[in-house]
Amino acid sequence: MAADRLRVAVFGASGYVGGELLRLLLGHPQVEIAAATSTRYAGRPVGTVHPNLRGLTGLRFRSPEEMGGFDVVFLAAELQTAIKVGADLAKRNECLIDLSPAYRLRDPAVFERYYGTAHTAPELLGSFVSGHPEDNRAALRTARLVSVPGCMVIATLIALRPFAADDLVDGDVIVDCRIGSSGSGAAAERLNLHAERSGALRVFAPHGHRHEAEVCQASGLAVRMTATGVEAVRGAQVVCHVPLRRPLSEVEIRRLYRDAYADEPFVRVIAQRRGLYRLPEPKILIGSNFCDVGFSVTPDGRRVVAVAALDNLMKGSAGTGVQCLNIRMGWPERLGLAFAGLHPI
Amino acid sequence: MAADRLRVAVFGASGYVGGELLRLLLGHPQVEIAAATSTRYAGRPVGTVHPNLRGLTGLRFRSPEEMGGFDVVFLAAELQTAIKVGADLAKRNECLIDLSPAYRLRDPAVFERYYGTAHTAPELLGSFVSGHPEDNRAALRTARLVSVPGCMVIATLIALRPFAADDLVDGDVIVDCRIGSSGSGAAAERLNLHAERSGALRVFAPHGHRHEAEVCQASGLAVRMTATGVEAVRGAQVVCHVPLRRPLSEVEIRRLYRDAYADEPFVRVIAQRRGLYRLPEPKILIGSNFCDVGFSVTPDGRRVVAVAALDNLMKGSAGTGVQCLNIRMGWPERLGLAFAGLHPI
Amino acid sequence: MAADRLRVAVFGASGYVGGELLRLLLGHPQVEIAAATSTRYAGRPVGTVHPNLRGLTGLRFRSPEEMGGFDVVFLAAELQTAIKVGADLAKRNECLIDLSPAYRLRDPAVFERYYGTAHTAPELLGSFVSGHPEDNRAALRTARLVSVPGCMVIATLIALRPFAADDLVDGDVIVDCRIGSSGSGAAAERLNLHAERSGALRVFAPHGHRHEAEVCQASGLAVRMTATGVEAVRGAQVVCHVPLRRPLSEVEIRRLYRDAYADEPFVRVIAQRRGLYRLPEPKILIGSNFCDVGFSVTPDGRRVVAVAALDNLMKGSAGTGVQCLNIRMGWPERLGLAFAGLHPI
Amino acid sequence: MAADRLRVAVFGASGYVGGELLRLLLGHPQVEIAAATSTRYAGRPVGTVHPNLRGLTGLRFRSPEEMGGFDVVFLAAELQTAIKVGADLAKRNECLIDLSPAYRLRDPAVFERYYGTAHTAPELLGSFVSGHPEDNRAALRTARLVSVPGCMVIATLIALRPFAADDLVDGDVIVDCRIGSSGSGAAAERLNLHAERSGALRVFAPHGHRHEAEVCQASGLAVRMTATGVEAVRGAQVVCHVPLRRPLSEVEIRRLYRDAYADEPFVRVIAQRRGLYRLPEPKILIGSNFCDVGFSVTPDGRRVVAVAALDNLMKGSAGTGVQCLNIRMGWPERLGLAFAGLHPI
Repeated sequence: MAADRLRVAVFGASGYVGGELLRLLLGHPQVEIAAATSTRYAGRPVGTVHPNLRGLTGLRFRSPEEMGGFDVVFLAAELQTAIKVGADLAKRNECLIDLSPAYRLRDPAVFERYYGTAHTAPELLGSFVSGHPEDNRAALRTARLVSVPGCMVIATLIALRPFAADDLVDGDVIVDCRIGSSGSGAAAERLNLHAERSGALRVFAPHGHRHEAEVCQASGLAVRMTATGVEAVRGAQVVCHVPLRRPLSEVEIRRLYRDAYADEPFVRVIAQRRGLYRLPEPKILIGSNFCDVGFSVTPDGRRVVAVAALDNLMKGSAGTGVQCLNIRMGWPERLGLAFAGLHPI
Repeated sequence: MAADRLRVAVFGASGYVGGELLRLLLGHPQVEIAAATSTRYAGRPVGTVHPNLRGLTGLRFRSPEEMGGFDVVFLAAELQTAIKVGADLAKRNECLIDLSPAYRLRDPAVFERYYGTAHTAPELLGSFVSGHPEDNRAALRTARLVSVPGCMVIATLIALRPFAADDLVDGDVIVDCRIGSSGSGAAAERLNLHAERSGALRVFAPHGHRHEAEVCQASGLAVRMTATGVEAVRGAQVVCHVPLRRPLSEVEIRRLYRDAYADEPFVRVIAQRRGLYRLPEPKILIGSNFCDVGFSVTPDGRRVVAVAALDNLMKGSAGTGVQCLNIRMGWPERLGLAFAGLHPI
Repeated sequence: MAADRLRVAVFGASGYVGGELLRLLLGHPQVEIAAATSTRYAGRPVGTVHPNLRGLTGLRFRSPEEMGGFDVVFLAAELQTAIKVGADLAKRNECLIDLSPAYRLRDPAVFERYYGTAHTAPELLGSFVSGHPEDNRAALRTARLVSVPGCMVIATLIALRPFAADDLVDGDVIVDCRIGSSGSGAAAERLNLHAERSGALRVFAPHGHRHEAEVCQASGLAVRMTATGVEAVRGAQVVCHVPLRRPLSEVEIRRLYRDAYADEPFVRVIAQRRGLYRLPEPKILIGSNFCDVGFSVTPDGRRVVAVAALDNLMKGSAGTGVQCLNIRMGWPERLGLAFAGLHPI
Repeated sequence: MAADRLRVAVFGASGYVGGELLRLLLGHPQVEIAAATSTRYAGRPVGTVHPNLRGLTGLRFRSPEEMGGFDVVFLAAELQTAIKVGADLAKRNECLIDLSPAYRLRDPAVFERYYGTAHTAPELLGSFVSGHPEDNRAALRTARLVSVPGCMVIATLIALRPFAADDLVDGDVIVDCRIGSSGSGAAAERLNLHAERSGALRVFAPHGHRHEAEVCQASGLAVRMTATGVEAVRGAQVVCHVPLRRPLSEVEIRRLYRDAYADEPFVRVIAQRRGLYRLPEPKILIGSNFCDVGFSVTPDGRRVVAVAALDNLMKGSAGTGVQCLNIRMGWPERLGLAFAGLHPI
């Protein structure tokens, strides 16, 4: 049976996004993991770094050299490594799905402004298709190079799309992002220490966060993003303050959302009048590929507070990566991504 | 297709164990949920109480009356309700899998000693088969009445079985149990308040915990159990201090564990020399049906510290319930229970 | 010595604000706690409810009847009780410091709009002095009736004051509030359950929060407040998005803050360029009476993100109450309030 | 006034114990901090590393060279540094209070067995007085060299002392220790990462923990210690399983504890029959210098479960260090250590 399976490699498999990819791909019925690279852990079983996978696979990390001939390569390295190896991986493999920030922005000048350094492979910037299925499904069906957006970008685009599409926004949209500690990766730095990070409400980007550039590029809206690290390992939530061009009722807005997402397998429009979970939050989405979205409108109908939540390592990264793979291969989109989330957790 | 599916009911479906059963059964390919009862929430969609299930089912809670004619009923009520309705459910349905403590102890006198009150249906106590597949698989294949043990019991039995089976224990085994807040259910009581329970290290049962009686009954060992509520929603861990009758080496003990669990689909023997996760812990098992077990032996080989961990709502309850169902129906044991757990989380 | 001490009573001493008052007053060198009331726990030692106080006092709760003749009464009851007993307490005691929301708003129509019910003692609304020392110190020196603002109000007013005072704001100010679980009190309700509240990012008030009315009343600004419950027991933080009438530089804004708070004993202007704690967060303020405030301004100088943080039970409530007492009595303002906060925590 | 104050230095002031010492000494009425050393942060204000101290002091870190002529030096470095500088600091200053593990064990062979390396200054091992006031107050009054025990040692000795003193123990005492993440210091290592450490129940020392050697040395009992890292930044708890030589009643044991600790300013014997906090836990002790101790005895009176809890950075380290200072100087023992702890937290 394995002979029929797609041969997939994960470049940068010892990080948190890489580990999530391994978990998803191990459970995917159409895929064989042909390689999982790690410079640091080469030779070791993947279960020594990702303890949830112990006993589920005999796979070992290998060094990242000579990565060619795979059906699909997922690139889960940090920024500079991804820029360095991107062109080569693109050339030597059938399909490349990048989960790093390396190829998300199209304009090198915008990249330089937000990242504080010039992009060293600017010629590639235009060649990646954005891995955001909710806006871009058709192009993904035939894409050879895919760049999955940042986790907060995905949530924000899903929250804002009904308003952006209909030109309903009047002025700046303020987006308050909250993100768990896995969003800053597995690096052993003081900012990631448990004693420092536990219980944090750390406004690490009051303005000018890199994801802001992505949202503006994709939505055409004037978005002002503030990002706060919160007490959680996984999870991201965006609270968007949307000034409307004309008053809208709750019923109208709900219809906008339902029309926008009626056929989306991983977007749930939350419209619950009772209970504790009336607006989306990541707690109940951990491990799932859903992005929940909901809203509340002021009595005068002029201002919407739109809220979206997701698991940053799933729908915010590896899960969307696998969703893109499913689309690209013409497989059912939910394949390997059906986990419902847990409650309570 | 639904016509071929097993018609399953969940009695007490608005609690935490009930919700976990709904989640697992919704994802189970051979099962149809024919009823989910709740006195309090009758008429409401299950997603209003279990927000992770929103959008995944149109199922609504119904009142618990007239529960007959189902292929299988899972009983997930609290103790007194389970005692009250058990006989009737047993009579009117093909198979009953009880997750409450109602029918776990065989001896009414032991029940009274540990629960502080006489059992009001003692005649049923002997008729349930223990839902602990690792000890009891053969009997479960034909059982009509099944009683799943307590979560800390399951973990302890798995940790101690190699020593108990070979009569290797010399004296009292001290078992230190740690449990998350979901173990005390969804009741709105002061002990469950976030402000009181958050960050707790609450030794709520220094001795005489009810699960102690179950472990002693099932293992024949003199177990002394201490239970502490820890900062977690899900998860249970037991640390067992086992005095040995004769010295054993690390290699010998590892072989005992591997022999005991070589064919078990949900027990992983952890024997890792490096890394952070050398001994089992529930963090990486949330949502999975694994019970991880590991150990360390003192240099003189006379004392083993054996550690087991699981998700109390999964392998510690609903997951084992579904595993019992799979065994009972002759299905593959992993059906609907394949989730690997997450890392990091 | 006790004969010289001020005789102080706490009405509603078994709640979280009441307990914090007891803790502070027990450590206050000029005060004697003459009564601590609780209907439910009357007769019991205060340490049975507030375990941190065990062994520090022989004080017992008494029933709340006949509360007259005290030098000062702190009123720490919930809203409706506070409205019911306020007039009587005001009449029969020298001084009343109310920590409930009962007497914060001056306009009965605004009260009714935000609380959804008419105030049953509207004649009292105008007679309380606002217990916000940073705006109101002079009036507090002679006040007989004091009403301490809500915790998020205190933080927001401190963050916005330099801009409001100088008429620098151009348009709506969006305020994103984050609050720990102790803010919803000690009631055993489902919303407060550990399993439901743990890890929450609960946008419980997307707009129209009651504290919004207070901030608008006190600041004259058009404030739009959104409130989210976060994973914490104590702590509140506000992130304020302030559009400026004219561009301001970082240096100018820092000067505004330093001028505003140079003499304030409990406001720290945070202006740190390095380290993890460049903007205020409640984590390091737990137990202290500081409100930390900081900011970041966009490169064009048109928009400020101002951040303030405090412990909601201290500077956000009981601590400010004791600060008002110190001002009222002409004592040093830091008396009994000198705790620095902890790091790490 | 400062002229009259004791001139105190903190060697290793940028770590967590060092920061706690700075906090306590800044609030101590008889002390002046004459130096706070840090190799890494020399020249920077202490508030850049310990954000709780911002605005409270102009003190800057200095490099650790030439540390002589102080009235008291607190040594808060890690093990190897403390061994290296200990002799010199002892010689060149009036009094040295060491908080590291460097000089706790008297026997170099035991040190080598537990630390896996030979002590490089074994001649000093006998010259330090143990900084455990509950056993050792008289000697501390005149001690020039003090070595404060480990946090779990302090808690265990307080829990076991009544039984050890009266020779009531029959056999091995199993001690289950639970400890927050601050116990492993401020080093940026993978084991301390928030994403890995959050929600942990990490049995990092199933047996042979270094603190075991200290407890055996000090108590004369055969203690078997198991240590688990739990989800908390601060806090330590020990659960001790004590087999008794002869049956004892609850009343007798309570009397043993009360007799042992009647005059101790920082040991509270908890004997509460109702409420959530019947046995000690660190949650309500964060920031305080109390060690709470309690117990439960089995119905047959043969086995006691004794529980003690403390804040590992306070009574478990810096707080006890300051308590030793107060004893040494003949000051009231509670000076600068009066904080009651918080509830809820």
